[in-house]
Amino acid sequence: MTDQQTSPRMRRGSARDAKRAARLAHAAHSVPYITRKIPRYEVLDEEGLSLIEHNADTVLAEIGIDFLGDEEALTIWREAGAEVQGTRVRYPRGMCRTIIQKSAPREFIQHARNPQRSVVMGGDNTVFAPAYGSPFVRDLDQGRRYGSIEDFRNFVKLAYASPHLHHSGGTVCEPVDLPVNKRHFDMVYAHMRYSDKPFMGSVTHPLRAQDTVDMAKILFGDSYIDPQTGKPRTVITSLINANSPLTYDTTMLGALKVYARNNQALLVTPFILAGAMAPVTVAGACTVTLAEALAGLAFVQLLNPGGPVIFGSFASSVSMQSGAPTFGTPEPTLVLYTMAALARRLGVPFRSGGALCASKVADAQAAYESANTMMPTCLAGVNFVLHTAGWLEGGLAMGYEKFVMDADQAGMMHTFLTGVDLSENGQALDAIREVGPGKHFLGCAHTQANFETAFYRSPLADNNSVEQWEAEGSLDMAQRANALWKKMLREYEAPPIDPGVDEALLDFIARRKASFPDSNV
Amino acid sequence: MTDQQTSPRMRRGSARDAKRAARLAHAAHSVPYITRKIPRYEVLDEEGLSLIEHNADTVLAEIGIDFLGDEEALTIWREAGAEVQGTRVRYPRGMCRTIIQKSAPREFIQHARNPQRSVVMGGDNTVFAPAYGSPFVRDLDQGRRYGSIEDFRNFVKLAYASPHLHHSGGTVCEPVDLPVNKRHFDMVYAHMRYSDKPFMGSVTHPLRAQDTVDMAKILFGDSYIDPQTGKPRTVITSLINANSPLTYDTTMLGALKVYARNNQALLVTPFILAGAMAPVTVAGACTVTLAEALAGLAFVQLLNPGGPVIFGSFASSVSMQSGAPTFGTPEPTLVLYTMAALARRLGVPFRSGGALCASKVADAQAAYESANTMMPTCLAGVNFVLHTAGWLEGGLAMGYEKFVMDADQAGMMHTFLTGVDLSENGQALDAIREVGPGKHFLGCAHTQANFETAFYRSPLADNNSVEQWEAEGSLDMAQRANALWKKMLREYEAPPIDPGVDEALLDFIARRKASFPDSNV
Repeated sequence: MTDQQTSPRMRRGSARDAKRAARLAHAAHSVPYITRKIPRYEVLDEEGLSLIEHNADTVLAEIGIDFLGDEEALTIWREAGAEVQGTRVRYPRGMCRTIIQKSAPREFIQHARNPQRSVVMGGDNTVFAPAYGSPFVRDLDQGRRYGSIEDFRNFVKLAYASPHLHHSGGTVCEPVDLPVNKRHFDMVYAHMRYSDKPFMGSVTHPLRAQDTVDMAKILFGDSYIDPQTGKPRTVITSLINANSPLTYDTTMLGALKVYARNNQALLVTPFILAGAMAPVTVAGACTVTLAEALAGLAFVQLLNPGGPVIFGSFASSVSMQSGAPTFGTPEPTLVLYTMAALARRLGVPFRSGGALCASKVADAQAAYESANTMMPTCLAGVNFVLHTAGWLEGGLAMGYEKFVMDADQAGMMHTFLTGVDLSENGQALDAIREVGPGKHFLGCAHTQANFETAFYRSPLADNNSVEQWEAEGSLDMAQRANALWKKMLREYEAPPIDPGVDEALLDFIARRKASFPDSNV
Repeated sequence: MTDQQTSPRMRRGSARDAKRAARLAHAAHSVPYITRKIPRYEVLDEEGLSLIEHNADTVLAEIGIDFLGDEEALTIWREAGAEVQGTRVRYPRGMCRTIIQKSAPREFIQHARNPQRSVVMGGDNTVFAPAYGSPFVRDLDQGRRYGSIEDFRNFVKLAYASPHLHHSGGTVCEPVDLPVNKRHFDMVYAHMRYSDKPFMGSVTHPLRAQDTVDMAKILFGDSYIDPQTGKPRTVITSLINANSPLTYDTTMLGALKVYARNNQALLVTPFILAGAMAPVTVAGACTVTLAEALAGLAFVQLLNPGGPVIFGSFASSVSMQSGAPTFGTPEPTLVLYTMAALARRLGVPFRSGGALCASKVADAQAAYESANTMMPTCLAGVNFVLHTAGWLEGGLAMGYEKFVMDADQAGMMHTFLTGVDLSENGQALDAIREVGPGKHFLGCAHTQANFETAFYRSPLADNNSVEQWEAEGSLDMAQRANALWKKMLREYEAPPIDPGVDEALLDFIARRKASFPDSNV
C-alpha cells in the first residue's frame, strides 16, 4: 500500500471519530494521493510518437493557432519569436517545446489548507478529482434537474467524505440558482469551507479568477507566500480549455493570465471530439491536441517561467450517425495512451480520462463506458484525473449515485496501482505448505493474519447469493448507491476552520457581491 | 483492421443475405479471430516473474500434486522421473517446464467445420468464446430459472450471430431439463448444427469425452485425419479444471486422457479463488496456479507429445466477510497480468479473464466488474477468452441481456487491439490543413471518406440527447439489450450442413442414447 500518511481526520478527535476512522481504515486507505508502483502502458513506440510530434510541429508552423481578442498575447508571441499575422500565430519547429522544457516543472505541489491533503502533481503520482462542469444533476429520487448551490455543496461534501478522492475539484456542478457573475464566490467558498482538500478556481472571467486568488490569500494567510522563494505557493489549479481546433479565446486567456501571474497552476486542455474538433482518426486527434497544448503551455511559461502547468487532454469521438459525443469507446482509449506518452516525453504533468460516459443514468452503459475510460486512465499514468466521479450524459449531468459508484472504482484503482506484493508475506509459501493439496485456505494462519487488508472491499458491490440478494430487495447497484450517498451526507462533518478566516472570507464575499449588480452573463 | 478474411456468411447467398451482410460489415468486421497490433501490458518485471516460477517449483518439489483415483497417471509420472508416494506426485525442480517446452506447440489451429472459422490459438491472437458452465439463465422477461436445452441452443445461435465472438464455446448453460448422462449429445450436436464456429467438448465423464470425439469424426468426415501427419486434426478444445489446490481428480483425468490420445486440445485450468483455494495474496495465488498448470500441461505432453494445450487461469478472490467469490476487483487483475506473462515465458497459449462479475443482474455492477476484467484480459494478451459474454452471478447464471452487452464490448476490444493507424490517411494532416482553426471537421473531405469505418459503433450504447432518450422510453442498456437478443434470434439462420452428415450425427446420438438408461449422475 502507498499509505504515505494516515489522513488527518483519522488522527483527531472523539471516540465516535475513532470508530468511524477504524471503519474507514478497514475498508480503505485514505492517502493524499497515489504513487504508482506498477509500470505504465504504452500503445505506440518511439517511431509512432515522434511522428505525431513532427506532425504537431508541422501544424504549428504551417497552420498555427488563433489567439482571439488578446493583443497582449500576440505581442508576447511576437517578442518570443513566433510569426504573428492578424490573430494567427505560427511557430518555428520546436519553439514551443523548447520554451516548455526550459522552465516548466516536471512535478509541483498543490497545497491544501490542511497540509496533509496537499497533492504532488506529476511524476508517478495520481490525483483523483470529481467531475467538472455539469449544468444538470440527477439522482434516483428527483430525476434530472438543474444544479443548485445546495447540490454543489453536497458534491463537495461527498468528495470530502470519499477516501479515494484526493481533490475537491472545481465546478462540481453549475449552481444555476445563483447569478452567473457571482456564483463563483459561493462555489469557491464551498470548496474552502466544506472540504480541506485542494480545489480549482473560476475561469469564466479574469475578475472571477482574481476573486479566487484573493480568497485563497485570505484562506492561506501567512502561508500563502513561500518564504524561500518570495512567490505565492501554488494553492489553486484551474482548467483552461482551448477552443479547439487551434484557437484560444479572450475569456480563457484572461483567466489564464491572472493565474499564471499569481503562480497558480494551469491545466491547459484541448477539448477534442474527434470528427468535430479534429480528424476522425486517432493520430489526427492526437496531432491537434498536441499542437494546441504546446502553444498553451508555452504561453504560460512565457508569462510565468517555471510556473506550474498540467498538460490536459479531453478527447472523445462523435457519433457518425448523430454527431453526439460518445465515450468509453476504443478510439479515445488509444488517444489517451498516446497523449499520456507525449506529455511524458514533453516532461510535464498530465491530465486526462476519468469515469466518462454518454449514458443518461447510472446503468450498465454508464459503468462499461466509465470503466473503459478509468482503467486506461490509470494504466496510461494520468497524474490529475478530473471527472473521476459523478459524470453522466457526456458531462451534462452530475449523478449522485454515479458519484459514489465511481468513487468506489477509484478505490479499486488505488489498490491496482500499488501492484503485486512480493514480500515474504506476499509470496505466502508457508501458507501453501500449511494447507497442502485438497484443503482450503479460509482458516489458515496466513489468511487470518492478512484478513483485514487482503482485498479491496467495495461498499457497493453485492457478492451475496441470489437468495440473500432477493431477501434484501433485489436492489441493483444504483439503488444501493442511492442509500450510500445519503448516508454519507447524513454522517458528514465539516473539517474545522479558523473562525477568523471564515469570517474574513464571508466578509470579502459580501463586500464584493455588493459592489456590482447581479447578472446572468 | 485485422480483417484476415471476410466471414463466409458474408460471401454466400441471397439478396437478403447480401443486405444483412452489408449491415453487419457496416457496424463491424467479422473475422475468425483477432491478431493484436498493440503491445501487451506487463505488471511484473523479470525478477518478480522468476521469483514466482521459483516458488512454483518449490511447491512442486516440496508439496507436490495429488492425482486422485488414477493409477495410470501415477505410473506415467513415476516413469517420467517424478517421485510418487500414494497419490502425491513430487517433481524435481524444472521437470514439468522441461517436459512442456520440449514438445508443447506455441500455437495451434482449432479447425471449425467451416474452414473460414478456424482459429489460431496462441501467439498474438485472441479468440472470444461465450461464458461456460452456468446452471441458471436469466432474462428480463422470465427472470432467473434453470437452463434448458432451448436456452442452450439460443446461446449457440446468439454466439453464431455475434460478429465479435469467434468460438461457440462449450457448456454455454447447463440444459438441466435433460438427463445428466445424456445431455452432452444434445449440447455437442447444438454446437455442430446451429453454428459453424469451433466448439468445446464434454468433460464430465471419459465416455462423454469419447462421444464428443466420435461425433467430431462424423462431422469432419474425411478431413478429420490430417493426411500429412496421419493424426487427427484438432477440432475440439476441452476445459480441464484442476481441483485446486494442488489436486487433479479421476473425472477430469479420465476426460483429459481421452482428448489427449485423440490429439484434441486441452485447456488445463487451475480454478483459484484466492483466500479459498490459494493464499489471499496475488503472488501466492499465482504460485499455486502456476504449479498446478505446470503439472497438468506436462501430463498432457507425456500422453501426447506435441499435443495442443492451453494454459488456463481462472482466478478471483473470496469476500473476507462472506466467503463469496468477488469479481472485477483489483487483485484478480494483478493475477491475470502476472499469469499471462508466466504463460508466455513457458511458451504456450493462455486462457483467462472474460466478462466476469458477481452481480445478479445486468446492472452497473455487472458492467464495471466485466469491463474491469475484459480490458486486462485484452491488454495481458490472453489468447482464448472463455466467458467473453453472458456471465452473471459468479458464473451461476447466463444472462441473455448480458450476453449481447458483453458481445458488444468484445467488438470494442477488437478495435482497440488493432491499435493506431499511422498511415497517411490516419495522420490526417491534409484534413487539419483543410479545416484550420475555429472550424469543424464534420463535413470535411477526410471525414466523409472515413465516415463508414471511423469509429466502433455500438448497437447498444445510447448517445442521444436526454430528450430523445426520454422520447424513446427512457430505456436503460439492459432493456435495449432485451430487444437486441430477441431480434438476433428472430433473424437467425442456421449455417448449412451436409444432410448426410446431419443424419449420421442424429443416428449416432439415437443409437448411443438407446444403449444405456437415463441417469442424473
